[in-house]
Amino acid sequence: MTERTTRDDSRTEATYLIETPQPVERVAEMMAGEQSSGTFVDVPGETDALRERHAARVEATTELEAVQEPSLPGSKPAADTDDVSYTRAEVVLSFPLENTGPSLPNLMTTVAGNLYELRPLSGLRLVDLDLPDVFAAENPGPQFGIEGTRELVDVHDRPIIGTIVKPNVGLSPADTAEVLEPVVDAGLDFIKDDELIASPPYSRVEERVEAVMDVIDRHEGETGDRVMYACNITGTVDEMLERHDAVKEAGGNCVMVSLQSVGLAAVQTLRQEADLPIHGHRNGWGALSRCPRLGFSYEAYQQFWRLAGVDHLHVSGLRNKFTESDESVIRSAKAVQRPIASPDDVAMPVFSSGQWAAQAPGTYEALGNTDLMYLAGGGILGHPDGPGAGVAHLKQGWEAAIKGISLEEYATDHDALRTALDYYDRT
Amino acid sequence: MTERTTRDDSRTEATYLIETPQPVERVAEMMAGEQSSGTFVDVPGETDALRERHAARVEATTELEAVQEPSLPGSKPAADTDDVSYTRAEVVLSFPLENTGPSLPNLMTTVAGNLYELRPLSGLRLVDLDLPDVFAAENPGPQFGIEGTRELVDVHDRPIIGTIVKPNVGLSPADTAEVLEPVVDAGLDFIKDDELIASPPYSRVEERVEAVMDVIDRHEGETGDRVMYACNITGTVDEMLERHDAVKEAGGNCVMVSLQSVGLAAVQTLRQEADLPIHGHRNGWGALSRCPRLGFSYEAYQQFWRLAGVDHLHVSGLRNKFTESDESVIRSAKAVQRPIASPDDVAMPVFSSGQWAAQAPGTYEALGNTDLMYLAGGGILGHPDGPGAGVAHLKQGWEAAIKGISLEEYATDHDALRTALDYYDRT
Repeated sequence: MTERTTRDDSRTEATYLIETPQPVERVAEMMAGEQSSGTFVDVPGETDALRERHAARVEATTELEAVQEPSLPGSKPAADTDDVSYTRAEVVLSFPLENTGPSLPNLMTTVAGNLYELRPLSGLRLVDLDLPDVFAAENPGPQFGIEGTRELVDVHDRPIIGTIVKPNVGLSPADTAEVLEPVVDAGLDFIKDDELIASPPYSRVEERVEAVMDVIDRHEGETGDRVMYACNITGTVDEMLERHDAVKEAGGNCVMVSLQSVGLAAVQTLRQEADLPIHGHRNGWGALSRCPRLGFSYEAYQQFWRLAGVDHLHVSGLRNKFTESDESVIRSAKAVQRPIASPDDVAMPVFSSGQWAAQAPGTYEALGNTDLMYLAGGGILGHPDGPGAGVAHLKQGWEAAIKGISLEEYATDHDALRTALDYYDRT
Repeated sequence: MTERTTRDDSRTEATYLIETPQPVERVAEMMAGEQSSGTFVDVPGETDALRERHAARVEATTELEAVQEPSLPGSKPAADTDDVSYTRAEVVLSFPLENTGPSLPNLMTTVAGNLYELRPLSGLRLVDLDLPDVFAAENPGPQFGIEGTRELVDVHDRPIIGTIVKPNVGLSPADTAEVLEPVVDAGLDFIKDDELIASPPYSRVEERVEAVMDVIDRHEGETGDRVMYACNITGTVDEMLERHDAVKEAGGNCVMVSLQSVGLAAVQTLRQEADLPIHGHRNGWGALSRCPRLGFSYEAYQQFWRLAGVDHLHVSGLRNKFTESDESVIRSAKAVQRPIASPDDVAMPVFSSGQWAAQAPGTYEALGNTDLMYLAGGGILGHPDGPGAGVAHLKQGWEAAIKGISLEEYATDHDALRTALDYYDRT
C-alpha cells in the first residue's frame, strides 16, 4: 500500500477500483503513464522537466481481495503462466490541472478515457473524483439547485411531490392537457414528461407546452399554487435552445433533458442560455454502471453534470422497479446533495420508479432531509380513490416520516394513506 | 423462437443480446412495453388505438445458451425459486418512427435508455440497429467521408498513413512544431493530436495550429504534398466552433473531437458549422463495451456518430495494445465502411494502437480494401533509421499486403521494412 500525500489543489484526484492479473503498483504507474504520456517505445522530446510538470501521479494504492476469474475479458498477465489470479485494488491517481484546465469534456477524456481498455486491467471503475476548486469557479453549476427550485413551487418543508405524464408516448398536446387536468388538480408540485417523448411530429414541444401551461395557469388562478412542468426538450443544441424559449414564452418553469443522449457540451450550452431549471434524466446510465467492475459510480459521474449546470438529477428510488440497490440509490442522492466546492453547487436528487408512501420513511431516514423530488406514476394515478388521494397519500407518508411516526399509525386518521397501504401492499 | 415479420421502413429495428432468469418471450414484451409505455399499474388514456400506433413490437426472439450465474447483478426471477438459470437470447424490437422522428438523441433514449436497468435482465447489449432511411435523409452524415478525405491528402490507392504527436502532453506550440518537423518531412499523410491535449493554457489551439501549419505549409512548398493535421478542438460547443474557425483560418484541414466527452448533440452542431473533416476519437468506448453482456456493439453505436456527421472513426487495430480482439476490430471497421442508407454516409475507419507493418497484411485481407487510416506512433518514431524509414516501412508493408506478397519476401529489396521486421519483432 502506497501512502497518500497531502491534497494539492492544482491536481484532480480520481479514485478507481481496478482488477488486474499484474502487480498493482506497476499497473497503477501504467495507468498514470497512459493518461499523461505513453507509447510502446521511448520518444524524443519527453524530457524530465516535461514529465515533472505534466505527468499523472499514483497517489495511493490499496490492495483488496484476489479472485480466480477475470471480471472482464481481454486482460493479459505480464508473463505466460498457468497460475494467474486477479487482484482487486483501489488506486488513486492525480492529474495536473494544467493538462486540461477546468474543461469538463477534457477532464472526462483524462479520467475516463482510454483507461477502460488497458490490457493489464480486467476491471476498472471510476468511483470518486476530487476536483480542484477552479472547476466549480469556472463552470456555472446549477442555476436554481435546491433552493431555487423550492422558490419556484413555493414548497419548503417537504419533498417536491411529482408525477410523470402517462401514457408516456402517443398523446397529442390536447390529449396531454386533458389527461393532466385531474393530475394538476390533485395538488401536486411537479409534473414531467417521460424521457421517451421530446418533440415528435404528433406532439411538438411548442404546442404541448402551450396546452399544458393552460391547465397549470388555470389551476394557479383557482388555487394560487404554481405547478412546475419539466418539458422534455431533448434534441440538437439548436432545437433545445428554441424549445427552451418556447417553454419560457408559454410561462413554463422547467426543461428536461436526457443527459447522456445529448452529451456534456450540449448541456453546457443549454445552461449558458437557459433561464429555467434543467431537469436531468439519466436514461442510459445502466450501460455505464451495471457491471460492478466497469464504468462509473454515480458519486463520480454526477459531478460532471452538476458542474455543467443541471439542477435536478435522477437517482432512481428505494425498492425501485429497476436493478439498483437501495444502498446505491442513497449514496447517489447524498452525492448529488454534497457540495463540490460551495453550497451553491448542489443539485436536487429526483427519486422515482415504483415510489409510493411506503418508501418515504426509509428515504427520509437515510437522507436526513427533504431536499428531493419524489415522483410517483402509478403511486398517484393508480390510487383507488383517484389522483387527488394519490397525491394526498404521498404527502401524508412524508408527514409521518418527518414526524417519526410509523405509516400504519399515521394512517389511522389519514384516509388516503390508509387506502394506499391496503391497496398497494396487495399489488 | 418468434418468426420475423417483413421489414417496415417506418420502424427502427434494434437487436439486443439479453440474459434473463425469466421467460424470454415475456421479457421481450416487457422491454417493448418499457420503451413505449409502462408503469406498474394501468393508467387512463392508454387506448388500443394509441398502443397500435406507438407501441414498440417484438419482431423476433431466438433463445441461445443458458448459464447458471447471472452476468450482471440486480436481476430477479419471476418467482422465488432455488432453481434459477439465466437464458441468453437475441431479441429484435421495432419502434415506430413516429415516436422519435429522425432525432438521433431521442433515438438513443429509445433504443439504449432505461432498458439497461430492467429488473428481469442480467444482461443487455445493443448489437445492431436497422434504421428507416429517413434518418440518413434528415441527418447530414459525413461531409467528407472516405473520398473527401482522400481528395484532401491526394492519396488514393493505399491507406492514409499517419501518426500521433508525441509527447502527447506538455509541449508548447513551438515545441510541437519542432517535434513534428522531422515527422512531416518523413512523408506521411496525416498527423493527429493525442486525445489528452485539446486547448490547455500551455498550448492553445489557436497558437498550436499556427505553429503546426507553418511546418506543413513549408513541407508542401518543398514537396507538393499536403499533410492533414487533425487538431484536437474538444471543448464546449462555443469553444469547438471558435477553434474550428481558428484551424480553418490557419489553413488547417481537419478537426478532432473526443466524441463521448462532448456528446452527440454537440457533434451535430459542429458538423452543421464545420468546413473541415471531423476526426472522431472514441476514448471512453471501453466503458460502454468491455463487459460482453452490457452496453453496445460498435456496429450499432457508430451509426449515431456517422449520421451526426463524423468523417473518421477510431476502431483500434489488429494485435493492439489494448483489450479488443482482432475479430471485433475488423467487425467495427467493416461496419464503419458499410452504408446506412447510401454510399455517401460511410466514414473512414482509423486503425491505431501498436500498429506497424506487421498488421498490414491481416488488415488488408480481412477488410478487402485500403479505405482506412493507419496510424503508428512508435511504429514511425521508433524505427531505428528514423521517422522517414518508419513511414517508408509502413508504405512498403501495405504495398506487400496489396500485392499479396509476404512481408519477409517483400523485405528482401525494401530496406526500411527489413529493418523494421528485425527490430520490432524483437521488442
